[in-house]
Amino acid sequence: MTGMLSSFFAPASVAVVGAADDVGRLRGKLLKYALDSGLAAPIHPVNPKGGTIQGRTAYRSLAEIPGGAELVLIASPGETVPDVIREAIAIGNRAAVILSSGVDVAALEAAIGDSGLRYMGPNTEGYYSVGGVAATFAHEVGEHLKAGTPARRPGRTVSIVSQSGGLGFALLGRAVAENIDIHSVITTGNEGDLECLDMVEHVLDAGEAGVILMFVEGLKTASRFAAVAGKAADRGVPIVVMKVGRSEAGQRAAVSHTAHLTGADTAYDAMFERYGVIRVFDQEEMLATAAALARFPHVRVRRAAVMTTSGGAGAWAADICGMAGIDVPLLSADLRARLGGNLPDFGSAANPIDMTAQAVDDGGTMLLATLDLLAHADEVDAVIVNMGLFRPGRIAALEERLRPVLARTDKPILWHSHILPIGENMAALAALGNQAFLNLRGCAAALAALERYAAFQERWRARPAAPAPGAAKAVGLPDGTLDEAATRTLLDGYAIPVPPSVLANSTSAAIAAAASMGYPVALKIQSPDIAHKTEAGGVALGIGEGAVAAAYDRIIANAAAYAPDARIEGVLVQKMMPSGHELVVGVVRDPDFGPLLLIG
Amino acid sequence: MTGMLSSFFAPASVAVVGAADDVGRLRGKLLKYALDSGLAAPIHPVNPKGGTIQGRTAYRSLAEIPGGAELVLIASPGETVPDVIREAIAIGNRAAVILSSGVDVAALEAAIGDSGLRYMGPNTEGYYSVGGVAATFAHEVGEHLKAGTPARRPGRTVSIVSQSGGLGFALLGRAVAENIDIHSVITTGNEGDLECLDMVEHVLDAGEAGVILMFVEGLKTASRFAAVAGKAADRGVPIVVMKVGRSEAGQRAAVSHTAHLTGADTAYDAMFERYGVIRVFDQEEMLATAAALARFPHVRVRRAAVMTTSGGAGAWAADICGMAGIDVPLLSADLRARLGGNLPDFGSAANPIDMTAQAVDDGGTMLLATLDLLAHADEVDAVIVNMGLFRPGRIAALEERLRPVLARTDKPILWHSHILPIGENMAALAALGNQAFLNLRGCAAALAALERYAAFQERWRARPAAPAPGAAKAVGLPDGTLDEAATRTLLDGYAIPVPPSVLANSTSAAIAAAASMGYPVALKIQSPDIAHKTEAGGVALGIGEGAVAAAYDRIIANAAAYAPDARIEGVLVQKMMPSGHELVVGVVRDPDFGPLLLIG
Repeated sequence: MTGMLSSFFAPASVAVVGAADDVGRLRGKLLKYALDSGLAAPIHPVNPKGGTIQGRTAYRSLAEIPGGAELVLIASPGETVPDVIREAIAIGNRAAVILSSGVDVAALEAAIGDSGLRYMGPNTEGYYSVGGVAATFAHEVGEHLKAGTPARRPGRTVSIVSQSGGLGFALLGRAVAENIDIHSVITTGNEGDLECLDMVEHVLDAGEAGVILMFVEGLKTASRFAAVAGKAADRGVPIVVMKVGRSEAGQRAAVSHTAHLTGADTAYDAMFERYGVIRVFDQEEMLATAAALARFPHVRVRRAAVMTTSGGAGAWAADICGMAGIDVPLLSADLRARLGGNLPDFGSAANPIDMTAQAVDDGGTMLLATLDLLAHADEVDAVIVNMGLFRPGRIAALEERLRPVLARTDKPILWHSHILPIGENMAALAALGNQAFLNLRGCAAALAALERYAAFQERWRARPAAPAPGAAKAVGLPDGTLDEAATRTLLDGYAIPVPPSVLANSTSAAIAAAASMGYPVALKIQSPDIAHKTEAGGVALGIGEGAVAAAYDRIIANAAAYAPDARIEGVLVQKMMPSGHELVVGVVRDPDFGPLLLIG
Repeated sequence: MTGMLSSFFAPASVAVVGAADDVGRLRGKLLKYALDSGLAAPIHPVNPKGGTIQGRTAYRSLAEIPGGAELVLIASPGETVPDVIREAIAIGNRAAVILSSGVDVAALEAAIGDSGLRYMGPNTEGYYSVGGVAATFAHEVGEHLKAGTPARRPGRTVSIVSQSGGLGFALLGRAVAENIDIHSVITTGNEGDLECLDMVEHVLDAGEAGVILMFVEGLKTASRFAAVAGKAADRGVPIVVMKVGRSEAGQRAAVSHTAHLTGADTAYDAMFERYGVIRVFDQEEMLATAAALARFPHVRVRRAAVMTTSGGAGAWAADICGMAGIDVPLLSADLRARLGGNLPDFGSAANPIDMTAQAVDDGGTMLLATLDLLAHADEVDAVIVNMGLFRPGRIAALEERLRPVLARTDKPILWHSHILPIGENMAALAALGNQAFLNLRGCAAALAALERYAAFQERWRARPAAPAPGAAKAVGLPDGTLDEAATRTLLDGYAIPVPPSVLANSTSAAIAAAASMGYPVALKIQSPDIAHKTEAGGVALGIGEGAVAAAYDRIIANAAAYAPDARIEGVLVQKMMPSGHELVVGVVRDPDFGPLLLIG
């Protein structure tokens, strides 16, 4: 591995400062998980007491380690961290993970000086690269190591990048339970130095994970987001984000937790939209979306077939799909007839396809025949199979006959059980490259995410090349607020059409102008000192022939009453336009992302 | 038990027609569950082959049963059902549950004639009254009977009434897993006779269940809904409904499944709102809502405190609460100071209250002290405790110290684990009268439902008495569509103000009318044959002095071109009103519910 972060993810040697013998304690777990991980490099416990820790020689300080340590994990008390860093620099180390909390960041930065040392944290729960480094005390990693890496299933692996250690590793535990293959979990804590965008970029450059999940309280360097998200888009790696701070209390919590300003939520939404980043709002939705994106190729999904053993569940699934924007179309007469051949009289082939409870009892014949027909029908882009997955051995019994059916199609096949499912059946489906969803709303959200990401990728790949610098027409703008006439000149410069209009300085000029453009007309006060014309009584709309003079006088009088000192340039006479769609375009300079375009 | 349904829910004897020996088959399960249930009455298998079934004497027909059967469960093939019903009537039976599908309903009705026999189904999965009758082959009931009724936990029991058997019993299995105490599950299938509103009314009259969950495809007799839902409101029993048919495909499925027309979805929404019925869209939301309503008294919940061991999860919880309309307020300086005394330096007392991971390791001291302060603070109405519930024994270790803290408060205390929780901890909390939620969105939805139902109950109890018949002012209306002038007369009758206006039949009359009311004016064609005036070019707005004549002539000409045979009554001259809020009020006669008021 090369790149800035190779010392973190492929170190030749590791030191664990503050390592403890007791694996019930966090500092004991940190060493244990590092030792249990797949990393072949030597791992040295460091503790002022020396002796042996977890069967390894413990060094009293970093300086004692023969050959030093390329990566240093620090879990000693917060006040010791600056000294540990000074020692680390002295032995030539340039990569540290500071899991300690209560660290004085100013003292830490002073200790680092211009040494070039890079660090994660402080107050990070560390990271875990499956088959590689475990630099964390998170118990979910202990469980994952204990269980052993499962055989890789069809599909992509998923990397989790989180500012919150608690949520990042909680997602690991939940993802494993949902049969999602994990590439890595990286949590960044307070981001005194390295930040989550560094980690996303690292994962992209490593080129292994096919989906990236992010938990974000606020980006430290939001101006880098576009480049990193653009790289993900170029490589077809979807990013799924849970971003907190939508509520005031959420913002308050994020600031107090990791000192991140959460930024304008709408600015984040706009940037996510621009770069095809899928925003979700909870763990369930995130995992369902990740599972679908990992399992199924980039594929447009606008129409789904729903097959079910419960008529009620089928109707419900159709509604949930509809609410997620996925159509459940009436199938063609031809397909209905072919499906109907397998169904009992009181079933339905319309879509949802109601196989009735008989499909549970016939050994799978009806289920497989129905699925095979739907999986090859041009009329639908995906199939939801709703059935009870509660009985041990249910999928195992179908497996051999299901495999060839699945092999003949590229369509996403998604399973859901309205009856509380058991893990065995869900795992068996994952081994076949399918995905069973814990909740139907997650299943529908996953389909919508497939469609959204595939549509985004089409747009992204077809996007026009960025204009060459200087291609935009430069127009000199005066400072301050432009009045309507000046704005018209500007728009004319870009050939943007505006209604015919004439600035009039007298009653007679206004009447002449109106007559020249045809009735009805609008009259609007023109003054650099009156920004809100309507409020000033400075606008008259739909003025017919013969009413112009009175309207002109009224507007001038109103303006004088509203703002006696205003400089009046005249009254703009404008042809009334028929009503139509209104469009507002604006530019704001976001504190996080810089200039953003507003279109309404 | 008294009432129409006592033969169904408290029969003196039961016959099971089509009973089988093999408990792996549905007809075997039906008998087995009936025998295993808490019902003391004799239960007789009936099968043309006779002999013994599951160790009981099997009768060849209903006629052979000594003493007959008050309740008959029918699971024989659909084509036999009318004959079975004739036999049942002959032995004096008047209550049947038809679990069979493929039944000819016309033949069934002919068999029943005027006997007075009432039935559930056909194509129902039956019902289960905990501690009473089991009249179903649903495997979840088998599991429930096998596990034995759990000790009653604090709070109310929940009754599930569902048109879909599959979903109704699936909810039972999921509810048990979420530690919700179940009163009964009643599924009504095709509702040839008895319908789900009968069952809701039965549950209300029995007076035992404190929360009712409904799965509805379409109400058979929607006109009865108001009376039944009103009775629930009077008794303070919340109804939580999952109603399908929001999408076209959902409607199609409901029609094909149980022949229910799903009705106008907006009409259902309006009726649900009127009677405080809480609509949900999936199983997870339904169960979370039911759990909270069962567990916690009617209590207004506008402000929640969030306490957490993970800063990230706290921020996220605050956002999710905000999205559900629950405020997570900044706590007072005084309360923050008192909370802060228990927290580590790098925690936060602001709300969310971040106890940091230290709260996991101190044996519960910080957690209990924090919870005790929040549970007694006037500043919040409920407390969400977010922490990992993954470690065996975590709640058991707190139990003794937690119990007095909970005993001192009436506030809802809701728990959520961002880390995948284990059942043991969730069950331990339920035994204490608290509720742990599988997902945070469900937790927030539950809080919102508590608030919504408590607010509804306040409104319901304070509602004005219905007006005495005849109190409304009667106005004679002509048939057909009213023109604008006739409508004005009607509105005048109710003293509803309208802009000054005059019907003009000539150019000069129009000019005189406009001059009398002041400019600008609007002109509108008046014809009983032109309902869409704008489309006919029959409207001119904002007409100034001097432009009235031209506008009048244009409108008359446009109308003549649009509808040459239209009877033209004239042109209405009306004073232009300034723009403001627009309100639309209408009445529709809904095919399900009858007259509904529309306000927009």
